[in-house]
Amino acid sequence: MLKTFHVKTKTRDQMIDVTRDIQTWISEQQIEEGFVIVSSLHTTAGITVNENADPDVKTDFLRRLDELYPWEHQKDLHMEGNTAAHLKTSQVGHAQTIIITNGRLALGTWQGIYFCEFDGPRNRKFLVKAVQV
Amino acid sequence: MLKTFHVKTKTRDQMIDVTRDIQTWISEQQIEEGFVIVSSLHTTAGITVNENADPDVKTDFLRRLDELYPWEHQKDLHMEGNTAAHLKTSQVGHAQTIIITNGRLALGTWQGIYFCEFDGPRNRKFLVKAVQV
Amino acid sequence: MLKTFHVKTKTRDQMIDVTRDIQTWISEQQIEEGFVIVSSLHTTAGITVNENADPDVKTDFLRRLDELYPWEHQKDLHMEGNTAAHLKTSQVGHAQTIIITNGRLALGTWQGIYFCEFDGPRNRKFLVKAVQV
Repeated sequence: MLKTFHVKTKTRDQMIDVTRDIQTWISEQQIEEGFVIVSSLHTTAGITVNENADPDVKTDFLRRLDELYPWEHQKDLHMEGNTAAHLKTSQVGHAQTIIITNGRLALGTWQGIYFCEFDGPRNRKFLVKAVQV
Repeated sequence: MLKTFHVKTKTRDQMIDVTRDIQTWISEQQIEEGFVIVSSLHTTAGITVNENADPDVKTDFLRRLDELYPWEHQKDLHMEGNTAAHLKTSQVGHAQTIIITNGRLALGTWQGIYFCEFDGPRNRKFLVKAVQV
Repeated sequence: MLKTFHVKTKTRDQMIDVTRDIQTWISEQQIEEGFVIVSSLHTTAGITVNENADPDVKTDFLRRLDELYPWEHQKDLHMEGNTAAHLKTSQVGHAQTIIITNGRLALGTWQGIYFCEFDGPRNRKFLVKAVQV
């Protein structure tokens, strides 16, 4: 089963928790055991699994990444000017695989699935493939 | 098939080779062709595949990551104070997928699977889902 | 289905687009729906999904990674001297999973699959496992 999800980002860097949307769809598909592949279709936005509790983690996370990969860099050649966003995307990964068991995403207490925007605001989409196995 | 593995870490940053434990379990399950998903259930500990030969690689690896993501950072908001561990976890990844062929993890000569602790010492666990396909 | 691909790298750091080779093989296997796991068998070369359009992105990408992980580092212990390459490999990932739909890799317009050499030039190989599901 494959589904396209849409997300509208509001700032240049943003982490959006998509766990509930994915879980709802898995429940509708009645998948009990298996896994999902969650895959961004963009080169300046990725997917990661990280803390869903304290929102300050997202703020710190994006700010620290921005310090490592500053938007402006005098040696960058890429004319679009978003080289930093490409690096951040490969760092977190364009996609993540999450196990499903007992009909639920097998995440720890504090884990959530995040769509990571690094060159917003934009209209974005990601694919989720669910496999019963 | 799904199994929970437990690991007890001893220091704040530590890479623990879990390749043999996973291979032993795969062999017990008699999986010949397929793959495994190895997934940390924590937001401050991840999984990576890297060198299993010279232990100095682990030392260098953890020290260099610590230089990029220093534990103390005056701008961090997260009250728990472990923002660096969250970033390191997303950098290596919360999970890895490894192909199985001929009953063995399809790793190169020098590759091993590591549980990466970034906020220890703690009692940790990770899931391994093995798929015959 | 499992296939070993060979790649000959020419410089120390190099991103090689392998999307077409993988797509050709998937088409030969007549896989319509499923996914592939693309996995490097090395600890100093990984796989990432990133921009396939402007070649300057690759140049920027590799140069910026080299700034974060300089080849020479006076604290490195690893005698082989390629600690930086190990870190870069874990950063991009040793492997990536890509969804297949309608017989095609489900990549966005600008996404390509790259073999990432971080300690070349060398003769390298990577595995691709394709699953119809």
